Amino acid sequence: MSKPYIRLDKNDAAVLLVDHQTGLLSLVRDIDPDKFKNNVLALADCAKYFELPTILTTSFEQGPNGPLVPELKEMFPDSPYIARPGQINAWDNEEFVQAIKATGKKQLIVAGVVTEVCVAFPVLSALAEGFDVFVVTDASGTFNAMTRDAAWDRMSAAGAQLMTWFGLACELHRDWRNDVEGLGNLFSNHIPDYRNLINSYMTFQPEK
Amino acid sequence: MSKPYIRLDKNDAAVLLVDHQTGLLSLVRDIDPDKFKNNVLALADCAKYFELPTILTTSFEQGPNGPLVPELKEMFPDSPYIARPGQINAWDNEEFVQAIKATGKKQLIVAGVVTEVCVAFPVLSALAEGFDVFVVTDASGTFNAMTRDAAWDRMSAAGAQLMTWFGLACELHRDWRNDVEGLGNLFSNHIPDYRNLINSYMTFQPEK
Amino acid sequence: MSKPYIRLDKNDAAVLLVDHQTGLLSLVRDIDPDKFKNNVLALADCAKYFELPTILTTSFEQGPNGPLVPELKEMFPDSPYIARPGQINAWDNEEFVQAIKATGKKQLIVAGVVTEVCVAFPVLSALAEGFDVFVVTDASGTFNAMTRDAAWDRMSAAGAQLMTWFGLACELHRDWRNDVEGLGNLFSNHIPDYRNLINSYMTFQPEK
Amino acid sequence: MSKPYIRLDKNDAAVLLVDHQTGLLSLVRDIDPDKFKNNVLALADCAKYFELPTILTTSFEQGPNGPLVPELKEMFPDSPYIARPGQINAWDNEEFVQAIKATGKKQLIVAGVVTEVCVAFPVLSALAEGFDVFVVTDASGTFNAMTRDAAWDRMSAAGAQLMTWFGLACELHRDWRNDVEGLGNLFSNHIPDYRNLINSYMTFQPEK
Amino acid sequence: MSKPYIRLDKNDAAVLLVDHQTGLLSLVRDIDPDKFKNNVLALADCAKYFELPTILTTSFEQGPNGPLVPELKEMFPDSPYIARPGQINAWDNEEFVQAIKATGKKQLIVAGVVTEVCVAFPVLSALAEGFDVFVVTDASGTFNAMTRDAAWDRMSAAGAQLMTWFGLACELHRDWRNDVEGLGNLFSNHIPDYRNLINSYMTFQPEK
Amino acid sequence: MSKPYIRLDKNDAAVLLVDHQTGLLSLVRDIDPDKFKNNVLALADCAKYFELPTILTTSFEQGPNGPLVPELKEMFPDSPYIARPGQINAWDNEEFVQAIKATGKKQLIVAGVVTEVCVAFPVLSALAEGFDVFVVTDASGTFNAMTRDAAWDRMSAAGAQLMTWFGLACELHRDWRNDVEGLGNLFSNHIPDYRNLINSYMTFQPEK
Amino acid sequence: MSKPYIRLDKNDAAVLLVDHQTGLLSLVRDIDPDKFKNNVLALADCAKYFELPTILTTSFEQGPNGPLVPELKEMFPDSPYIARPGQINAWDNEEFVQAIKATGKKQLIVAGVVTEVCVAFPVLSALAEGFDVFVVTDASGTFNAMTRDAAWDRMSAAGAQLMTWFGLACELHRDWRNDVEGLGNLFSNHIPDYRNLINSYMTFQPEK
Amino acid sequence: MSKPYIRLDKNDAAVLLVDHQTGLLSLVRDIDPDKFKNNVLALADCAKYFELPTILTTSFEQGPNGPLVPELKEMFPDSPYIARPGQINAWDNEEFVQAIKATGKKQLIVAGVVTEVCVAFPVLSALAEGFDVFVVTDASGTFNAMTRDAAWDRMSAAGAQLMTWFGLACELHRDWRNDVEGLGNLFSNHIPDYRNLINSYMTFQPEK
Repeated sequence: MSKPYIRLDKNDAAVLLVDHQTGLLSLVRDIDPDKFKNNVLALADCAKYFELPTILTTSFEQGPNGPLVPELKEMFPDSPYIARPGQINAWDNEEFVQAIKATGKKQLIVAGVVTEVCVAFPVLSALAEGFDVFVVTDASGTFNAMTRDAAWDRMSAAGAQLMTWFGLACELHRDWRNDVEGLGNLFSNHIPDYRNLINSYMTFQPEK
Repeated sequence: MSKPYIRLDKNDAAVLLVDHQTGLLSLVRDIDPDKFKNNVLALADCAKYFELPTILTTSFEQGPNGPLVPELKEMFPDSPYIARPGQINAWDNEEFVQAIKATGKKQLIVAGVVTEVCVAFPVLSALAEGFDVFVVTDASGTFNAMTRDAAWDRMSAAGAQLMTWFGLACELHRDWRNDVEGLGNLFSNHIPDYRNLINSYMTFQPEK
Repeated sequence: MSKPYIRLDKNDAAVLLVDHQTGLLSLVRDIDPDKFKNNVLALADCAKYFELPTILTTSFEQGPNGPLVPELKEMFPDSPYIARPGQINAWDNEEFVQAIKATGKKQLIVAGVVTEVCVAFPVLSALAEGFDVFVVTDASGTFNAMTRDAAWDRMSAAGAQLMTWFGLACELHRDWRNDVEGLGNLFSNHIPDYRNLINSYMTFQPEK
Repeated sequence: MSKPYIRLDKNDAAVLLVDHQTGLLSLVRDIDPDKFKNNVLALADCAKYFELPTILTTSFEQGPNGPLVPELKEMFPDSPYIARPGQINAWDNEEFVQAIKATGKKQLIVAGVVTEVCVAFPVLSALAEGFDVFVVTDASGTFNAMTRDAAWDRMSAAGAQLMTWFGLACELHRDWRNDVEGLGNLFSNHIPDYRNLINSYMTFQPEK
Repeated sequence: MSKPYIRLDKNDAAVLLVDHQTGLLSLVRDIDPDKFKNNVLALADCAKYFELPTILTTSFEQGPNGPLVPELKEMFPDSPYIARPGQINAWDNEEFVQAIKATGKKQLIVAGVVTEVCVAFPVLSALAEGFDVFVVTDASGTFNAMTRDAAWDRMSAAGAQLMTWFGLACELHRDWRNDVEGLGNLFSNHIPDYRNLINSYMTFQPEK
Repeated sequence: MSKPYIRLDKNDAAVLLVDHQTGLLSLVRDIDPDKFKNNVLALADCAKYFELPTILTTSFEQGPNGPLVPELKEMFPDSPYIARPGQINAWDNEEFVQAIKATGKKQLIVAGVVTEVCVAFPVLSALAEGFDVFVVTDASGTFNAMTRDAAWDRMSAAGAQLMTWFGLACELHRDWRNDVEGLGNLFSNHIPDYRNLINSYMTFQPEK
Repeated sequence: MSKPYIRLDKNDAAVLLVDHQTGLLSLVRDIDPDKFKNNVLALADCAKYFELPTILTTSFEQGPNGPLVPELKEMFPDSPYIARPGQINAWDNEEFVQAIKATGKKQLIVAGVVTEVCVAFPVLSALAEGFDVFVVTDASGTFNAMTRDAAWDRMSAAGAQLMTWFGLACELHRDWRNDVEGLGNLFSNHIPDYRNLINSYMTFQPEK
Repeated sequence: MSKPYIRLDKNDAAVLLVDHQTGLLSLVRDIDPDKFKNNVLALADCAKYFELPTILTTSFEQGPNGPLVPELKEMFPDSPYIARPGQINAWDNEEFVQAIKATGKKQLIVAGVVTEVCVAFPVLSALAEGFDVFVVTDASGTFNAMTRDAAWDRMSAAGAQLMTWFGLACELHRDWRNDVEGLGNLFSNHIPDYRNLINSYMTFQPEK
């Protein structure tokens, strides 16, 4: 009767970044822009760090929606990049779905702008096809909290796991002993409070 | 165990606008009035744009509840318009249910005032009769956030899909190529941030 | 897979008011006191208006919890009134459960202070025994919003319907034609915005 | 020791609209975009209605700041329109100050984007030159509430009067008898709650 | 350099209630309606209790603004009641100012709807004529918090004292020994937390 | 279809306190620090009072995460204390799971920092192994409300019961007659409003 | 034209604690009770630590207002303790003013419940008599934020310095070298974040 | 009677950064950490960009307060850096004041942690000595909004100008023509919305 615990596995997960475009970002008002920018880049850093296959897609970059955020373009130069000719639900684009299926992964990590459309539509479609879907809620943004709450309800009721980038990183990493420094750096770069802890700690270590 | 993905289909959907009356609107305090007015008119524009059969109903227009918002009356001059003689749940009114069934549509898009009564009651009744029901949460309003949250929980647990007008429009449209200008206008008229994007874009285009 | 629509029926419903005591009320901080007082009295007025069997219970009135709110005591002079000798979950008190069963009603409407204990415990127990349970969320109060949210989640997941007093009144009444004046008075007494609508309306009627 | 009551006088007031440009508007996050758009247009309607000399100015319209909001451009085709070549404080632009002085008005009504720069700088400069300055706070926007609060404090301490568009309209109009219908229309177009009152009222008038 | 302490004196104070009309009340959204209704009636009870001369005024009661709240009309049957023919600033109405001056009081206690107009304008005018003015902020309401904050700043900078009804009552009463029961009743009727304290206290008194 | 009512039983419950470390606490921003400190100590007091087996675990105490909060260390000198060498999900640490299984309890009460990782991961693992799991939401903290809401949704959907420390204490105690003074002291130490009620009550008792 | 910088001097300051009574505390809703209790005790600890003469006063302890918070009574066994027979403004009580004047201090540090009455009235009276007055805003509480904001405005405009307990302690201490351990303990006992810093620091010191 | 307009002049301004230390930053809870980190670095970038003399000071870096944020240390390798031996008010440290006076600047721009102490104390002292003081409110942080509001009131009443880093940059720059690219880069690096505007703009330029 309850959802089973589907645990993220770095060997079985792919990341979908949907429509993080410079124009569309001006629509995002349920998260502060400083925090949102940080969350999106943190998710991208997770994808790089765990070497997860990552798929980028955009909608009408030449129009008012604007281009993909340049930082993302630079971080994933070799990733599939699907500029959709018009499909609003990225899952309606065959090339996008084929790129996903080509990864051979069963766990899909999804973030995008705006939450109730660019995220929710492919999430619902992927669930309907039997994928395990993890929504990175804090790297997804939309018009306001009411819209977000409705979108979360729809996705969760359909079987998606609601997560945030930090939980995602921890569940993928499993054990600090796999790499203390690498994960520590990732956190230090994206969590000011954590960076402060580390900087205080370093000062207190006489030998370091 | 999860809700299946019921996807809105413009060929199988009807819109129910319940009790958007000038007096009742003064009760709505979970959304700012400027935004709420915009959301209701945006939903109405969606109904027109996608040519969805639309059914209007009101309760006691001659009394303190006040008349239907004039803009809605003007936009749907030929739609069924059921002035209920007393039934609080519009679904208890046979004429209303017959009008719905006469559309032959299986997907019902519902909005109204107030959320936990005028929306929730017919939503729950329609679900019980096997319709697929989509609540337009941001074109529905009520006394406060606590009331809204309880109403959302009741409707979602009964199987309703919680949406907002923008997600609804996108799911109905499916593909921008069906009509870029029409949908763009609809968004420009109801999303100031989107209008700004378009206006900036137009300026930057030398030839346009 | 979804909760079925259990519709309140005034012939099959009883009201349980749990621990609305003057001391415990000072613990309630998730609703403003002016509004909370109004909501509790509005629920009590509903119980009277629809002639629903009502059962009162309290915990340690002689101690710091303080006496039952006097207004409630006065409104229900003939109702069962169970001063529990120590049970925290009122459902653990046999007299209380017998009083409920003596009403012969299957639908239980519950409100109290504090939400996650005095309301949630008997709600969960009643659900476990097969009753249909309706929580009047806005006539129930607790320490803060976090506590309330957790309590709502627990009760809803167990099958309770989350409502507010206004939705409850409307679902019980079904049709304004049953009594326009009575329900109108009830609303006018507890919804300032509605009272204003009525007062404006009366002024505008030349003959009245 | 207190500020004297400087009362707005429609015969002695001019309106300055500073940098309401489509790009800059995406920076405004201390007011919801639906409401902000409405407030700016309401202020513009006031300027038209009271026939106040109005001066428009912008900064780098061809760049990312974007063009002046088209609605404003259309409403004031004959007003002075100063595209500043680089001055951030519009008061540093001689043409702008000359346009103001050419009106012969002593009361300046100022709104713009963003509050702490495009509004505050000319406000402080105008006060320093002895003008009476009225800030239309709700037709001015900026990054967040903290920034706004600091800007309000700076302007108020320097002698500016903090107002909103509705108060401005009322103080300019003085007496409803000057024109009931005109002011009523202005309010109806920009205050949904007021429009509802009027629509209810019209319905209740049998002869009208 | 600081404002001197002007202390309310029940022998030198009059109350002005401006435009608490049933239609205009629907515009008030900076205070919850339950609380606002309570505050206005609490202020009226203070005026009665301290036998302060009270002056009522309204604007266009026959139109959409609606009639004076009936409770106020009933409480002050013999008070001056000025239905203004059109002046927005009540101080522009000679009859209103004469009624004030006829009281011979120098301290004016003002509340009304909406704050930045119906309150602020006569407050500023009265200050300009040398009255000591006390604004009852919580018995005055307006569209939103931003509007209120701007109005408070304007009134305070001009020399008004910002108060709330409870502080007003306490400053007028000076000493509980003047009448414990009367003031206690007033508080009990309008402060639920205080009522609870009294009810608990009464229970704990064996002899009472 | 609904979650059954699993009722906490003090004879079948164990408490897991996960990573309440001085460094990690600086990351907690969804609860005010004064309140959070109080909640964690209240939960610890409950564990002591009901003599529940309690298991402590930490992650990298010698590094920036900092040591276990000293108060907890002092309160549970004889409890299993597992300093994990690197596992992020405490359930991946065999020693931790063995300590839990050694208690022979089926009900697990879990709190920790941060909610979506240190709490959610072992909660999901324990549910997957058939334990009944109760999350003490207000003794668990994380970066912000958005993260918390997503974590609650994930845990609740997987079958966890969301509680707070006060509800937990009440459900474990069952009946005040088991020990009025002990539970009263626990509440008085951690709920200022309750302490005030008791202190007022004591004053009003002539003989006490 | 600006307020001069009056700097707190531990040799010239006295503390007035007004009406921190167990009943009245239930009225305080502008600060969370956990935080408010901590702030009041932190202020009391400051008074003890800096050996400032401290004066306690209460109103009707035998009635519903309840007794002085017991912790305060215990901390200041030898301080003047004035149970006022009825004066609402403590400054109207001669014994209270004499106790203040007997200290020979010119700087008065004031906190109490409720802010706009028990704090504001003596603050305004003391300012009128030429004292320098420092309001400890976070050890003073009242019904809601609106009331607090109005009270702050009134006190600040009259010349009071608005402070919080932490700033007060720092301004009185002047230099950490006067006593590192003592002030550190005071902060550690009342600021959980600071306590965590110290506990982390202690762990990192190899020799300690 | 009003504060005159003191306009920031890059040739007459110095920047004071007070106690931005890694431990103290964990106390800051009135601004989100992502935003606060950005604001502090933006202010530092302004100081560099406008080549303003900048003075750093810290308190007890070897203890729990932690070291200066490393980024600041790296950005200002040649700036005066005063590690205060114990003075809480940096102005009590002669070396600090001498460093300020050595700059020969009359306008002081101040930011630090925490606002009501490390910022407010030197601000008040500097004002008392006749400096013009500009507080960068959003690069200063403290425990909560109540504390911040009290600190702002104290500083503003004493004559300080409340600003934020963006307004500061604009007032120092005066005219975009002084350097479009440099200021644009500074804004692009610290205002995500502005960066998005620029990135969209660049895409729309065919030749670029």
